[in-house]
Amino acid sequence: MTENDIDLIIKFGGSSITNKDCIETLRVTALEWCAHLVKKCLNSDKNCVIVHGAGSFGHHQAKEYHVSSGYSHLSTKFETDKIKLGFSLTRQSVLKLNASVIENLLKEGIPAISLSPFLSWKTDNRIVQEDGCEMIHAVLNQGYMPVLHGDAVFDKSLGCTILSGDTIIERICEKFEVKKVVFISDVDGIFDKPPNNLEAKLIKHIQVRTDGDIFMDIQTSQSVNDVTGGIKLKLQAAINIVKASPKTTVYISKVSSNSTQDICLNDNLDEKTFDSTKISLKK
Amino acid sequence: MTENDIDLIIKFGGSSITNKDCIETLRVTALEWCAHLVKKCLNSDKNCVIVHGAGSFGHHQAKEYHVSSGYSHLSTKFETDKIKLGFSLTRQSVLKLNASVIENLLKEGIPAISLSPFLSWKTDNRIVQEDGCEMIHAVLNQGYMPVLHGDAVFDKSLGCTILSGDTIIERICEKFEVKKVVFISDVDGIFDKPPNNLEAKLIKHIQVRTDGDIFMDIQTSQSVNDVTGGIKLKLQAAINIVKASPKTTVYISKVSSNSTQDICLNDNLDEKTFDSTKISLKK
Repeated sequence: MTENDIDLIIKFGGSSITNKDCIETLRVTALEWCAHLVKKCLNSDKNCVIVHGAGSFGHHQAKEYHVSSGYSHLSTKFETDKIKLGFSLTRQSVLKLNASVIENLLKEGIPAISLSPFLSWKTDNRIVQEDGCEMIHAVLNQGYMPVLHGDAVFDKSLGCTILSGDTIIERICEKFEVKKVVFISDVDGIFDKPPNNLEAKLIKHIQVRTDGDIFMDIQTSQSVNDVTGGIKLKLQAAINIVKASPKTTVYISKVSSNSTQDICLNDNLDEKTFDSTKISLKK
Repeated sequence: MTENDIDLIIKFGGSSITNKDCIETLRVTALEWCAHLVKKCLNSDKNCVIVHGAGSFGHHQAKEYHVSSGYSHLSTKFETDKIKLGFSLTRQSVLKLNASVIENLLKEGIPAISLSPFLSWKTDNRIVQEDGCEMIHAVLNQGYMPVLHGDAVFDKSLGCTILSGDTIIERICEKFEVKKVVFISDVDGIFDKPPNNLEAKLIKHIQVRTDGDIFMDIQTSQSVNDVTGGIKLKLQAAINIVKASPKTTVYISKVSSNSTQDICLNDNLDEKTFDSTKISLKK
């Protein structure tokens, strides 16, 4: 595969486009806003890849059937068959959300193409062994917009597992030259205290050292992370990305906000003007 | 890929599971019947692959945007972009039907896995160049049931085109040892006159010579075929399959009928007892 530039990977976070408290429930207005944002990006001649989370689609089934742990450790066909059904149910639910995402992009006139990871991504003990980056490349080269998502996939050791959208983004950043990754979230970004704490302050810039450590009050951030595991994982994904791809800048930013729009559309950003978290490698 | 046996490929014909006259309209009862039939086949320990047509899903969009002709012959970006959008719209519509098919199979407790051809099948001037048979093999080996469908795919010469479910079946029969292919149709099979003619008689057995000619009154069949292009193509697909895979027997049979159930479930069939068309190579 020849190397290719991607201007923007936009992650539609599961918590921003779905209501995580109710099974298979879309946040319709948020999803429409996201699709419209993508249209504006394409109109500005940006090369985009969309990745979306699962939110209240798939998670419920994956958890109920323990899809993430696979079935290699199980001894009976009955137990194994149950997880296989859970695997199919999980995929079916995520594909339902994927269909809504594609539908909204098509409504904006965007030639969106669903690249379901199950078919081309494989893991071994949850580590990506085969990826679908060649397919992303082909789809971009033909002038379509690739849409990927967290998915249930085959795993060499476990039988099956869950591959998260964030892991997919990490791999794409390794294989392509990606300028920006924007995680669209249901909060403004990373706070120094839980966001529902009135004293919580948004951390506007997190600089990552080449060894992966970050220049900020670890103790403070730790206490945040304990509360919101989602944000902790998001921050870790962001750190992994900038560590492996120093040219990439990652943003965590709120859905339907001017900041998110500015981040996606403007190449020269004044950090003071937006309320989001920027994560980049310390130069 | 090591060779693998497939007991049954069941094609859910577009005209049997959708109402072709109304855009994106399911025949709910027919689809439920098909899913239940598959469950019975699995209960009889049969190795099944499902392929479904598009019917009133996808066809409309594919026709309106001329997706089948691709865009390589077009000179302007405006024209090309229009077909690309049509390509995405076609896929989105077919995937909607696919989601309903999978949902009905899951309701029967079948671990069905959608293998959307777009991701692994590629054509050159409509001839299959790359197929997804390795993926079908992997999915079967892991104990899941693969579900494929007619789809819009990339074409080396044309840019894009439509890959029919029948072409997919032909290729699967070349790569696997397939015992039976059952085309579930909205009519009993091939008739010697148009089926709405009161004198039309069902042809119960069509024997194909190794050169592809068939032992029947060509003139009569010709007149039928002129009327129902769908059946002509179906017959041609059946002929191609038995020519290339002499061990495979093909049946064209009506949805929700005892004959279809008998054909799928029984290994020793008495041709006199069923009202369907059997197509096999002349021995």
